[in-house]
Amino acid sequence: MNISGKNFIGDKLSGDGKVYYKTINPLKNIENQIEFVEATSNELEQAIDLADAAFPVYRELHGRIRADFLKSIADEILNLGDDLINIYCQETGLPQGRAIGERGRTIFQLKLFASVIEKENWRKNIHEEAITEREPTPKPSLTKTHIPLGPIVVFGASNFPLAYSTAGGDTASALAVGCPVIVKSHPMHSGTGSIIASAIIKASKKTGMPNGVFSNLNSKSFDLSHELVKHPKIKAIGFTGSYSGASALNESVLKRQEKIPFFAEMGSVNPIAITESAIEKVDKKMVQMLAGSISLGAGQFCTQPGLLLVTDSKYTDRFVKDLDKTLKEVGAQCMIHPDLKKNYIYQSDKIKNLKGVIEIQANNNELDDNLAHPKLYMVSGNDFIANSQFQEEVFGPFSLIIKCKDLNEMEQVIKNLEGQLTGSIFAKEFDYKQITPLIQAFKSKVGRLLFNDVPTGVEVSEAMTHGGPYPASSDSRFSAVGPDSIYRWVRPITYQNWPKELIEKLIH
Amino acid sequence: MNISGKNFIGDKLSGDGKVYYKTINPLKNIENQIEFVEATSNELEQAIDLADAAFPVYRELHGRIRADFLKSIADEILNLGDDLINIYCQETGLPQGRAIGERGRTIFQLKLFASVIEKENWRKNIHEEAITEREPTPKPSLTKTHIPLGPIVVFGASNFPLAYSTAGGDTASALAVGCPVIVKSHPMHSGTGSIIASAIIKASKKTGMPNGVFSNLNSKSFDLSHELVKHPKIKAIGFTGSYSGASALNESVLKRQEKIPFFAEMGSVNPIAITESAIEKVDKKMVQMLAGSISLGAGQFCTQPGLLLVTDSKYTDRFVKDLDKTLKEVGAQCMIHPDLKKNYIYQSDKIKNLKGVIEIQANNNELDDNLAHPKLYMVSGNDFIANSQFQEEVFGPFSLIIKCKDLNEMEQVIKNLEGQLTGSIFAKEFDYKQITPLIQAFKSKVGRLLFNDVPTGVEVSEAMTHGGPYPASSDSRFSAVGPDSIYRWVRPITYQNWPKELIEKLIH
Repeated sequence: MNISGKNFIGDKLSGDGKVYYKTINPLKNIENQIEFVEATSNELEQAIDLADAAFPVYRELHGRIRADFLKSIADEILNLGDDLINIYCQETGLPQGRAIGERGRTIFQLKLFASVIEKENWRKNIHEEAITEREPTPKPSLTKTHIPLGPIVVFGASNFPLAYSTAGGDTASALAVGCPVIVKSHPMHSGTGSIIASAIIKASKKTGMPNGVFSNLNSKSFDLSHELVKHPKIKAIGFTGSYSGASALNESVLKRQEKIPFFAEMGSVNPIAITESAIEKVDKKMVQMLAGSISLGAGQFCTQPGLLLVTDSKYTDRFVKDLDKTLKEVGAQCMIHPDLKKNYIYQSDKIKNLKGVIEIQANNNELDDNLAHPKLYMVSGNDFIANSQFQEEVFGPFSLIIKCKDLNEMEQVIKNLEGQLTGSIFAKEFDYKQITPLIQAFKSKVGRLLFNDVPTGVEVSEAMTHGGPYPASSDSRFSAVGPDSIYRWVRPITYQNWPKELIEKLIH
Repeated sequence: MNISGKNFIGDKLSGDGKVYYKTINPLKNIENQIEFVEATSNELEQAIDLADAAFPVYRELHGRIRADFLKSIADEILNLGDDLINIYCQETGLPQGRAIGERGRTIFQLKLFASVIEKENWRKNIHEEAITEREPTPKPSLTKTHIPLGPIVVFGASNFPLAYSTAGGDTASALAVGCPVIVKSHPMHSGTGSIIASAIIKASKKTGMPNGVFSNLNSKSFDLSHELVKHPKIKAIGFTGSYSGASALNESVLKRQEKIPFFAEMGSVNPIAITESAIEKVDKKMVQMLAGSISLGAGQFCTQPGLLLVTDSKYTDRFVKDLDKTLKEVGAQCMIHPDLKKNYIYQSDKIKNLKGVIEIQANNNELDDNLAHPKLYMVSGNDFIANSQFQEEVFGPFSLIIKCKDLNEMEQVIKNLEGQLTGSIFAKEFDYKQITPLIQAFKSKVGRLLFNDVPTGVEVSEAMTHGGPYPASSDSRFSAVGPDSIYRWVRPITYQNWPKELIEKLIH
């Protein structure tokens, strides 16, 4: 494996900077060997100038040609073989199976976007003929199509080093429609980012893309990120990460003279409402499903269910006990980075100290390692509603049970929630009338509503919505997952009164 | 005609406030009789609470039912007869023909949105069946649809008292998809707004809509507007007006805890690039078209062409002379409001005093009335590029000719422009190769690109785009005109794993 630790400024490796950093192996709690050199302001300018120059060429290419590029990226990622899997595991502590699974998802996404653009019908071209004899005024001919916005900056996620980072959903969707991409490498997995960047550059050369369609910049400090989002030649931003990270960047975005779309997927606490009927009978499968979703990947998913809404019934205690027991069996898991472990302790302690909290599963004897134990706390619906701090995301294998007096209070809890990526309802089908108020309340809050199912494991397909009312995402009108996610990076344009021969040259 | 001057808080007339104002008849330069009472904070709360309560009911209605409401609004507007036309003319100084034309456009829009929602296919429902046998994980069933965002605030335009105000495009598109609307009445035409509001309320009662789907608040001061956009129960904002107005409101929008979409159409200077070949022969029709577009409705259109790009050739002087002469023949026209006339003088004087400006048509002997004379100034491409102040919109019958050395400089001028609603190219068809760089430059700048046509007279149809890169609009990914403008007010939601019988109840 040959990772230089340098930045990719288009197809050139560049390391002019003087600030170095290393990634961490969280399993061993040691630094990995490679030294990454932070990109300088000058290198940032070079990358953006290249992207800006590549844009008018790149956007005019037929979808078939950009599709070949995407498919070639997928091939080159596979060609990285074990080198990729090894560095992924070294930098995240996640098991090999997860690395292989996420690589599969990344490749699937690249091929999906390739298939979306190949035939150019994503442009939704509409042509209206002129009606010269119309009264009182003639109608001009109009042709509407969609075109890319321009160079995009992508900030990848800490928890998806492949599928939502360097060659992940944001990058693939933006490259697909003709936007050059500059990735700000995630400092927790810059090696994984770097080796993926090398695959993208290889594919870009092989398929003859203009230099500058892709750059990859290293940085551990935030300065470079703010410089990137403020740059006048950047025309949109894709971000996957925390609310606080997105908010800090947004401050810089708002200082821009030219306002641009800033799409941020910021995660949420993904409430699951469980009715009495759902827990009336012992349902091991359901409890395992819930415990599995809470603790999957050490709870490091934006769709991790951090809130469980139950009503106070004679079945509640038993259900809580079962869940507690099942979660205990999961045991401790390694988190992606020591900082995430620290944050997990900090956030869960914060919840613990709020008024009315009961510890069901405490695991307070945390060791000085990166293993996180599941935690399960409980609070009444009343106390939950009284304090909005209960809604803060605890990133890790944590869930807060909200014990509501009845379905009415449960409805009130939902109405008091902030925007969410997902909401779920567990009930028997014949509860439909009873759960209708819950459905209605959730409709105003979530981007995806599940029935007797858990929110982790986001399907990548046309019918998926991954987004939701603020602060789950910055703009609920778009999805970060699936073919429609390309519409974050394009805009309509209408050609009026152009002769037919010229229109054919103008649109794809 | 019976206009109370009060606010519509849902279906109730309310005038608790103590601040009154009147509109102005710009033709006579006197105040109109009706006294409007500004809405109080308390009345604003009432209107928003009603809208918030109406929302869960209103959004669940089948499109057919909301379509009946929209069609009924159209009928009730027609039923207002001459009362509407008279107050429109009294408050704007615009001719009766324009009033009737704009009423027609308003009614057409209402019926268009009715036809869009009647069959519910605007929701773009997609259903994917579960694949239980899929490896390694089963695929859940997924159904994606679109739902409305919630109560919307609409700020109408000064220059379109009907088609882009109280029952205009923003209101009609939001009501269509199930968003209650609170209109902040434009203080220049609050009488027109009030009488239209009465028609909406009448239609709302006739068709059995929940009270609160529509309210109309009067105010001349800005405080109420800021209160409105900051309110947590408001879920999106539609604005048509000036860049400065939108920017001031946006400051308040950004202070919100929950960020929401703020769609602003802020106008632009709509450059027209004229090649040598287009003016080589005397073309009276073209010159009349240009002069007509510059001076249409006293130049009070967001698509008014305020920049004319020409190259320095032996035909240029003659073309400029012809245009000057034709514009002189148009003569002075009454502006909608004395403030707009004052602003026209202020803005055009500002351009006049910039370095390098030559006055072609000066009309400096302005009288103390509301008539605005066309003005035509000229500047070199070089001087234009050197000073961004040349790009400030002069709202009125004004155009600035930019004399470029050649097509290369013209291309540079376009590349230096801010975002625009429209751009136009006048050329002979066989120029295509020559104008390609202009097309490419315009593509990055405009929402609509015209060939041998003028930008005023925005067609309301599926293939229209009315919007453009910032600052033409706040978000170039949406259009303010045409059926697709509804997508400003809706978001996708996905239902996962719901039994078929329940899904049918959940989606339309």
